[in-house]
Amino acid sequence: MHFHHHGYVSGDPRIQPVSGTGVDRPEELPAEVDVLIVGTGPAGMLAAAQLSQFPSITTRIVERRSGRLAIGQADGIQARSVETFQAFGFAERIAAEAYRITEMAFWKPDPADPSRIIRTARPVDDPTGISEFPHLIVNQARVLDYFAEFMAHAPTRMTPDYGLEFQDLTVADGGEYPVTVHLVHSTGPREGTERTLRAKYVIGADGARSRVRKAIGCTLAGDTANHAWGVMDALAVTDFPDIRLKCAIQSGAGGSILLIPREGGHLFRMYVDLGEVHGHNTRDIRSTTIGQIIEKANKILHPYTLDVRNVAWHSVYEVGHRLTDRFDNLLPEEVGTRTPRVFITGDACHTHSAKAGQGMNVSMQDGFNIAWKLGHVLEGRSPESLLSTYSAERQVVARNLIDFDRQWSSMMAKKPEEFDDPTELETFYVRTMEFPAGFMTEYAPSMIVGQSVHQEYASGFPVGKRFKSAPVVRVCDTNPLHLGHQATADGRWRVYVFTDEPLPGRDSSASRLADWLAESPESPLAFTPESADRDAWFDVKVIYQQNHQSIDINAVPPVFKPVVGPFRLTYYENVFALDPSADIFELRGIDRRGAVVVVRPDQYVANVLPLTATKELGAFFAGVHGAAVTAGSS
Amino acid sequence: MHFHHHGYVSGDPRIQPVSGTGVDRPEELPAEVDVLIVGTGPAGMLAAAQLSQFPSITTRIVERRSGRLAIGQADGIQARSVETFQAFGFAERIAAEAYRITEMAFWKPDPADPSRIIRTARPVDDPTGISEFPHLIVNQARVLDYFAEFMAHAPTRMTPDYGLEFQDLTVADGGEYPVTVHLVHSTGPREGTERTLRAKYVIGADGARSRVRKAIGCTLAGDTANHAWGVMDALAVTDFPDIRLKCAIQSGAGGSILLIPREGGHLFRMYVDLGEVHGHNTRDIRSTTIGQIIEKANKILHPYTLDVRNVAWHSVYEVGHRLTDRFDNLLPEEVGTRTPRVFITGDACHTHSAKAGQGMNVSMQDGFNIAWKLGHVLEGRSPESLLSTYSAERQVVARNLIDFDRQWSSMMAKKPEEFDDPTELETFYVRTMEFPAGFMTEYAPSMIVGQSVHQEYASGFPVGKRFKSAPVVRVCDTNPLHLGHQATADGRWRVYVFTDEPLPGRDSSASRLADWLAESPESPLAFTPESADRDAWFDVKVIYQQNHQSIDINAVPPVFKPVVGPFRLTYYENVFALDPSADIFELRGIDRRGAVVVVRPDQYVANVLPLTATKELGAFFAGVHGAAVTAGSS
Repeated sequence: MHFHHHGYVSGDPRIQPVSGTGVDRPEELPAEVDVLIVGTGPAGMLAAAQLSQFPSITTRIVERRSGRLAIGQADGIQARSVETFQAFGFAERIAAEAYRITEMAFWKPDPADPSRIIRTARPVDDPTGISEFPHLIVNQARVLDYFAEFMAHAPTRMTPDYGLEFQDLTVADGGEYPVTVHLVHSTGPREGTERTLRAKYVIGADGARSRVRKAIGCTLAGDTANHAWGVMDALAVTDFPDIRLKCAIQSGAGGSILLIPREGGHLFRMYVDLGEVHGHNTRDIRSTTIGQIIEKANKILHPYTLDVRNVAWHSVYEVGHRLTDRFDNLLPEEVGTRTPRVFITGDACHTHSAKAGQGMNVSMQDGFNIAWKLGHVLEGRSPESLLSTYSAERQVVARNLIDFDRQWSSMMAKKPEEFDDPTELETFYVRTMEFPAGFMTEYAPSMIVGQSVHQEYASGFPVGKRFKSAPVVRVCDTNPLHLGHQATADGRWRVYVFTDEPLPGRDSSASRLADWLAESPESPLAFTPESADRDAWFDVKVIYQQNHQSIDINAVPPVFKPVVGPFRLTYYENVFALDPSADIFELRGIDRRGAVVVVRPDQYVANVLPLTATKELGAFFAGVHGAAVTAGSS
Repeated sequence: MHFHHHGYVSGDPRIQPVSGTGVDRPEELPAEVDVLIVGTGPAGMLAAAQLSQFPSITTRIVERRSGRLAIGQADGIQARSVETFQAFGFAERIAAEAYRITEMAFWKPDPADPSRIIRTARPVDDPTGISEFPHLIVNQARVLDYFAEFMAHAPTRMTPDYGLEFQDLTVADGGEYPVTVHLVHSTGPREGTERTLRAKYVIGADGARSRVRKAIGCTLAGDTANHAWGVMDALAVTDFPDIRLKCAIQSGAGGSILLIPREGGHLFRMYVDLGEVHGHNTRDIRSTTIGQIIEKANKILHPYTLDVRNVAWHSVYEVGHRLTDRFDNLLPEEVGTRTPRVFITGDACHTHSAKAGQGMNVSMQDGFNIAWKLGHVLEGRSPESLLSTYSAERQVVARNLIDFDRQWSSMMAKKPEEFDDPTELETFYVRTMEFPAGFMTEYAPSMIVGQSVHQEYASGFPVGKRFKSAPVVRVCDTNPLHLGHQATADGRWRVYVFTDEPLPGRDSSASRLADWLAESPESPLAFTPESADRDAWFDVKVIYQQNHQSIDINAVPPVFKPVVGPFRLTYYENVFALDPSADIFELRGIDRRGAVVVVRPDQYVANVLPLTATKELGAFFAGVHGAAVTAGSS
């Protein structure tokens, strides 16, 4: 955590100094905003939290409910999401209160007596160590609380505007605020009063029945038949021995259960199979009572019993697999002729089952993806064309999600005798672990993702995939740390310079690159406004191949020790050495001739280059920044 | 974290349900309180935080300042303190914002040119793995903030009463509230107004110039001469390469510096030697300016320079080594005839240098020691005689502290040529690490510390020392965890049952002990009031010798799966198995015939017994609870 450089901070350093639009931020929604976000679900709240780090931008987030979410909705948190929370500063806190999945159990009919279930497998979660972060289960409400805290502590001091429901929007062809949005007060003394505001950009994060999606004329395509599940968050007394383990339970007679233990030591969520919804049974299934769900659960669990003592929340959950045709307001024929102004995220784009625990996670990455791009375009760091990469990148992810979830949920709904191989379900679960953990996303080359022609310089940081952290030692204070965890959601691009062999102070490819970074007009750092600290837009870190004892911090090139704040202090915390117990060069396949690894603000690897490829590095960032920033850098 | 068992908790589970004196807690200080704490330093705030967990007790904490501490004072946090913070739920958060010490550097005059300093050693901190917790440096103000948050979230919803200064107290011979305390409003509209309140007990945590100490007639004994240090919390630009490392710097000419890097990446604290204070130079030394401190620092650092850009705080720090003759209001001749009513803690008892980074840490353990004892006596769990163990236990610790600090600070003040061995300073530092890390404390046998006659049953849990955690796997959810970290500062005694070889469901010493614990009138659990959950006073945990896959949770004896809350739910999280990668039986020397390890609410091992020693276990707790609780257990 970096603080005190603008003067002594006496209180909580997580509360950032107020600045820009956070100073005298109006409580009332203004008539004009830069970004309007509709909906305070995971996608909207993450997007708002990310934009809260841009003090020059006015972002508001509206929600039709009168206040925070209290109960229900999603609860599955992939390791990739916890990794994301780390960048927002709350991974450890949410992990401390969440349920953690370390094993999963599979229960099937006993071949000797199919009326009884028996445990057939209990594979460990993440057996291959995909991530250093845990797989968690916790109520979505708590995730939203932490994002709300983050944005309230941001320089912009953002809070959601509750009690405002989105009605409709129109997009004009030009003007500074081309999107006109109609809202209505949904609660409080002004309930029913309409209001209009104008925005530069709108993010629709308003869920499966998204009105923003409707307003921009998107259509959903997918299954016509839905599968129904009764779902409850309950407290119970039971002799089922795995009540505190995630379980896929298939009974011989009565269908299946997905059991998800929850935070706090007692609560669990249970999805109880209610079958396919067709025309003739729709009404019956939709009116399934909590009593019927519990009764069905007891049948499936036989010979075990479930004595439900308290139900915190329940619902009949019925959903098919549908995907929107596009993620923004540009019609296919308009792509390339103008740039989008309205974006949809999360459930507004993709509806699917809750069974794979994916929804909240994919939604958050939608929000992460669009938010920093809007920030950079609105601040003039990048051209508007950057915004077209959102739909291009996230539509692929959504399609993969739908495909995965269709496979997983149809398997979950299958009768045991329908499987060719009795271990098919758990085999699929283990084999596909990387996808539900959130690490399969691999963005295609674009203006912000390079061609992977130099991938061999850092084979463990695949271009287009998220930057996978590894241990290092910080030179200045000798602290062992995780390199990736030093990156916060501050909207900055990151340039990791893995050095070649010479130590600091000697001529090397790394030292020549350092000089180029500091001095060349083609260096990305040249885009940084004169008025800002040199590390304001780019976070440049260096990792030496040697142990920290060998590194003379005074000999490290100045570009790796930026001068910061009004006192012009030296920041030493970007200089790293090997952790002898876990050599990052070995772990991530980094060439001993060194490598540059460029990472996007949303943690995806954008490029891998040799240390000598200054021309390619300069060209890459010229593409990222485009003509739009020439003025800013002069 | 254990929650939802009283019904669904939608918000932050760290905010405990309000109860007892927390319901309608008066904002104004009442006329009568159970415990009055004077002073909001580390000792007082920890004591208040601990007492905030006892809903039946009215505790108030007064402070003469108008609000929270903003700056200055202590900053060294031993691993033992971080371990303590873990029990109060904020170890990870404070570690995330603190400076962490992993190495220390020693600088001495260069033999070739004694006008210049050179680095001579850089030993790692905690090379032997004394603790899994880090050694931190962070402003005391933040420690106090976290304790304030903890007590505000406790059932009693406590907040400090600022702007009230202690004047005097008198202790009557009898009556329910025998201590009469005179306070005066020190700030605000009522400034100067006196007020009187009556208390059952008073904790004086009011610092080196303690008026509570004076009121009970204690005297300080120790050095007559003081050593003076200039101290500053500063931001600077320097070419001194170890500015982000803890350093002991001895110059040939100009004296010595203790350099303590601080949180945030830039700030450091520097103690600059100003020499002994004697009659003739007292005034000169006390009026040393910040400019003179900086000038002296530059002389000592030669050939390096220190360009101080901002001084957050500075002081001339002058202190000797003094210890109070007693820690409570009982005169030596009164011991055994009555019990104490007034206690002093922290700097009120022991004054010494800041150099070993001990003050705040020892003070907090004073507060931890007295607070749970007051809680238990006031709730009728234990007889008043329990309170006499406070002075007995903490006076020894204070004396050891003074001795250690006297050695360390006189070494720090020595000129390089005065050392017999040039490596003497760093050798002392490494050799004595356990003391400053906070783990040397070993309480002598008493009503709450058993004779260590069965120590061989768990040689790694020495009776009288703090319970050193080790890894285990929780059976119900297969989570790998640290056993000790499951213990929170909830005021409960803990009974760890390490089993003998048979698995649950088979006859064993452990199963027979479980039956005895559940059913015998001699069991400590029999003291638990009928109206409370069976785990309300005693936290009983079981650790099996096998891997978790071998443990049938349904076969585990009921005493290890308490029924809790209004829904009478089963709590499964007290049942543990081996972590195959770190066998706790091996790591802590636990006999394969099993062992019972009894741990106090302040985390000290109170007893180690064989599983069969039910008679001794019953007798031990009969002593702890005494006659006072007979009524409560009937």
